[in-house]
Parts: sequence; C-alpha cells; structure tokens
Amino acid sequence: MELKMDAAALNTLMRQEFSQVAEDFVVEEVAPMAVTVRLPVAERHLRPGGTISGPTMFSLADVSMYLATMAMIGPVTLAVTTNCSINFMRKPKAGVDLIAYAKLHKLGKLLSVGDVLIHSEGLDAPVAQASLTYAIPPR
Amino acid sequence: MELKMDAAALNTLMRQEFSQVAEDFVVEEVAPMAVTVRLPVAERHLRPGGTISGPTMFSLADVSMYLATMAMIGPVTLAVTTNCSINFMRKPKAGVDLIAYAKLHKLGKLLSVGDVLIHSEGLDAPVAQASLTYAIPPR
Amino acid sequence: MELKMDAAALNTLMRQEFSQVAEDFVVEEVAPMAVTVRLPVAERHLRPGGTISGPTMFSLADVSMYLATMAMIGPVTLAVTTNCSINFMRKPKAGVDLIAYAKLHKLGKLLSVGDVLIHSEGLDAPVAQASLTYAIPPR
Amino acid sequence: MELKMDAAALNTLMRQEFSQVAEDFVVEEVAPMAVTVRLPVAERHLRPGGTISGPTMFSLADVSMYLATMAMIGPVTLAVTTNCSINFMRKPKAGVDLIAYAKLHKLGKLLSVGDVLIHSEGLDAPVAQASLTYAIPPR
Repeated sequence: MELKMDAAALNTLMRQEFSQVAEDFVVEEVAPMAVTVRLPVAERHLRPGGTISGPTMFSLADVSMYLATMAMIGPVTLAVTTNCSINFMRKPKAGVDLIAYAKLHKLGKLLSVGDVLIHSEGLDAPVAQASLTYAIPPR
Repeated sequence: MELKMDAAALNTLMRQEFSQVAEDFVVEEVAPMAVTVRLPVAERHLRPGGTISGPTMFSLADVSMYLATMAMIGPVTLAVTTNCSINFMRKPKAGVDLIAYAKLHKLGKLLSVGDVLIHSEGLDAPVAQASLTYAIPPR
Repeated sequence: MELKMDAAALNTLMRQEFSQVAEDFVVEEVAPMAVTVRLPVAERHLRPGGTISGPTMFSLADVSMYLATMAMIGPVTLAVTTNCSINFMRKPKAGVDLIAYAKLHKLGKLLSVGDVLIHSEGLDAPVAQASLTYAIPPR
Repeated sequence: MELKMDAAALNTLMRQEFSQVAEDFVVEEVAPMAVTVRLPVAERHLRPGGTISGPTMFSLADVSMYLATMAMIGPVTLAVTTNCSINFMRKPKAGVDLIAYAKLHKLGKLLSVGDVLIHSEGLDAPVAQASLTYAIPPR
C-alpha cells in the first residue's frame, strides 16, 4: 500500500483546512495504515488539577484517525466521523505531551475503521484507547 | 428519588468548577435521572462550512451526563468519564443551538451509566447519540 | 412514515431466514422506527448461577435493531451489523423473560442507527443498553 | 508482571466453569497482559451463506478478554463484562477458524480494560475489533 500523503503534507492539510485547531496536532510519523500524532499540551487543554480534558483527548483520537485515513486516500476534507468509542483509563501525566498512535483496520471505499492508543509521552501505559469509524464521501 | 441539585445549583457548580467552559452549557431542566442542557452555539464551536465540531458535541454529551449524575448525588467534582460511545448521525442545523437530553439508566455507588440524545433546537431527528459511564469516587 | 412489515411479517421473516434462532425472538409490537421484542428465556441462555449470558443479550439487541430496520424498509436479509456498543448494567432477574425496546434514530439509504434498552419483564430498571449501526446493501 | 495462569490452567477453568461453551474456545498462547484464543468454527456458529454469526464473534471477544484478565489475577469466576464496543469489518472466510488476540491496556483492582482483534486464520486483515471493560469483584 502506497502513501498518498506524508507527514509534511498532512501537517499542511491541517493548517489549511483546520486552522483553528492545527497547532494542537503535529504529525510525527506516517506509515501504511498508521500515523503518530503529538498534542503539545497547553494551558487551554487543562482542567482544574492539571488534568488534560476529555474533549482534548477525544479530539486527538478523532484527528489522528482522520489523518491516518487521509495519508492513504489523499485529502478528502469532507470525511466525517460516524462513531467513536473511547475508554479513558488513566490520568495523563502533568506537563507532558500526549502521543497518539492511530492504526487503520479497514479502509473501504465508503468507510475507514481503526483504533487509537493515546500515551503521555514516555510512559508505557496508555491513558486512553479509542475506536473510530469515518464515512468517506463518494469520489 | 429525590434531586440533590436543581438547575440553578448545577449552573452554579459549572461556573465554580469549570469556569473555562461554563458558558458553553446551560442547564434548562432537571428531573429524577434526567437533565436537559443547552449549548448556545458560538463561532468557536464551528468548523469550515458552519458545521458544529465533533469535540463540541462530545463535550455536550459528556457534561450533560455529568450533570445528570450530580443532580442525583450532589456535587462530586472528581467524578470522571471512563467510557463514551458516540454516534454522529446528521449535520447540525446552522445557526441553531444544540439541546441535549441526558438520561441515567444506572446510578450505583461507583458508576453511573446513561445516554444522551443531542438535537438541533426545533428539529425532531437527533444529530448525535452517546452512551457514557462515569466513575464516582468512594465517599 | 409507513411500516413495510408488521409483527406477523417480521416473525415470519425470522422463521424463514434465521430458523436456527427464530424461537429465541418474538416480535410483540411494531411502530414507526421502533419494535418491541421478547426473548423467552430458556436453559440454553443461562450461565452458572442462573444469569442470562452476555451473548444472549447481545443477540437480542442485535436482532431487535435488525427487525426495527426491516419494519421500515422491508426484508433485506443481507443487512449486517457494523458496530455495537453495549453496556451491561444489572443482573437480569431469574426466571423472567427479557423484553427489548429498539428505537431507530437514523434511517438512511446505506445505514441505520439506533439504540435498544433491555429489561427483565416487569422491572423498570434496564439490564442492558446498546447502540447499533447496520449497513444496508444498495438496492 | 507475572502470570497467575498459563494456557493449560485457563483451558481447565473454561471446562470447569463454562462447560456449555468451553469447546468453542481454545487458549493457544498466554503472555503478560495478552492471550491468543482459537474458535474452532462449527456448524452452530454459522448463518445462511456460511457467515459466522455476530454473537459468535462477540462471544469470542468477550471470552478472550475474560481469559486475558484471569491469566493476570487468577480465577475470579464472578468477573462480569460491563461494556463492549465491537466493530464488524469484514465477512470471515468460510471454513476457517477464528483467532482472537486480546490485549489488556489497564488492569486495576476493580476494572480491566483492553481490546481484541479477531482474524480468520491465515488472513492479515481483521474481521472484527472490540474494546471491553470487565468489572472485577472486590477480593
């Protein structure tokens, strides 16, 4: 399977199409059916007590799965999430970025399905795990 | 079942504990095991094309389930989401608030489980449906 | 919205197409976008201690959502489940049938999405809640 | 992390505690936080057309996650599934066993959380992916 977009192309796509949130997500690695995305944690992602908010982790899972799909099929900005099931398992470590590993399990014409593990950088035990489905518009 | 908190008390809790996001969520009605929450849609919730972002809808589901739980047990600010499964079913109507109806199906000592339907105000067909589990710390 | 199949037609469909399991499921009521299905509990559904097995409840949710979809679009035997998220909330009451209430939230050309509440007959508190997506083949 | 039960002990546990279904599941490998389980496909698992039924795949995911948990904590027969989200992605290959790879992401005192990939033996692309949570009774 050939990649249609590399890390640089995915980061450019984020800045062009999702400029409000693009600085939250940095694609670090791309491989067939897989991407690694960093969330540089900032004040706006935190809840009282220094925890990273649930919606921030949801966004990271959602964007990572989107980027894993785009890497394989090229830029399709109208792809939309149809389902996400996310388990929040541990409190993220304070003052450390989040790293998401997204893996596609199915890439069909109309749907992509995969899962995402989110870690606090440097820690083995994941903070969250999500499974997502994207609907891809007919091309 | 008696309510421990009414709509005014829940809105005050949001302003005190979650001041960064409190203006996004207005509790409109509270009943045993159920709350109705309005998200007054603003520019920051939108994606290109005027769509409300997925993380905004996730947040609304998550907060609504939290508030439905607090209404029954009183303020427990350390309750945390452990699982959320959300289906995005339709594009929300532009320029219209979102209304979430949260319903608890189980309220145990350590867990609450329920689901949330999200509608564009005035429309029958829901835009999203979510099922959530909260872990309640031992008291 | 008009129904394409009533309870009798759905029960006949089950006997014709799913003869191995048809006796497990009895359609009791059909309404637009909703069905009620009974599972007459038998020895083969039980686990040690008299509990109804998880796969039995999964099957009931799955079949109920299928039947709610068929009631609206007519018999499409190749419709397949693509996603199910199920919460098991309470131990079912021993010696009592299960009753499932399935509700469609979206009925598109290619997908139906809905949820199912499962009760032990006569008890208010549900034993399980499931959200499901079916893929409907192009017709 | 030390294993409390090996493959032979897990297979014995299945025969003792779940005798009705034990022949459906054969533990092939056990590692810390992971198990591999085979489902020898038989007539009773099939639907018209030779497809393996959804409930069969649900059962395989559910049992595999249970066995991954038991391998780490020892036999706790009252552990129960509280949530399962499963994606059915492809039709299993006819006439071939299913192989499930279960991986624990969290093993707490009260909960275990993990996911399961199910393959038709010999094929790379998974037929289903599931995330599950088990509640472990206080000991």
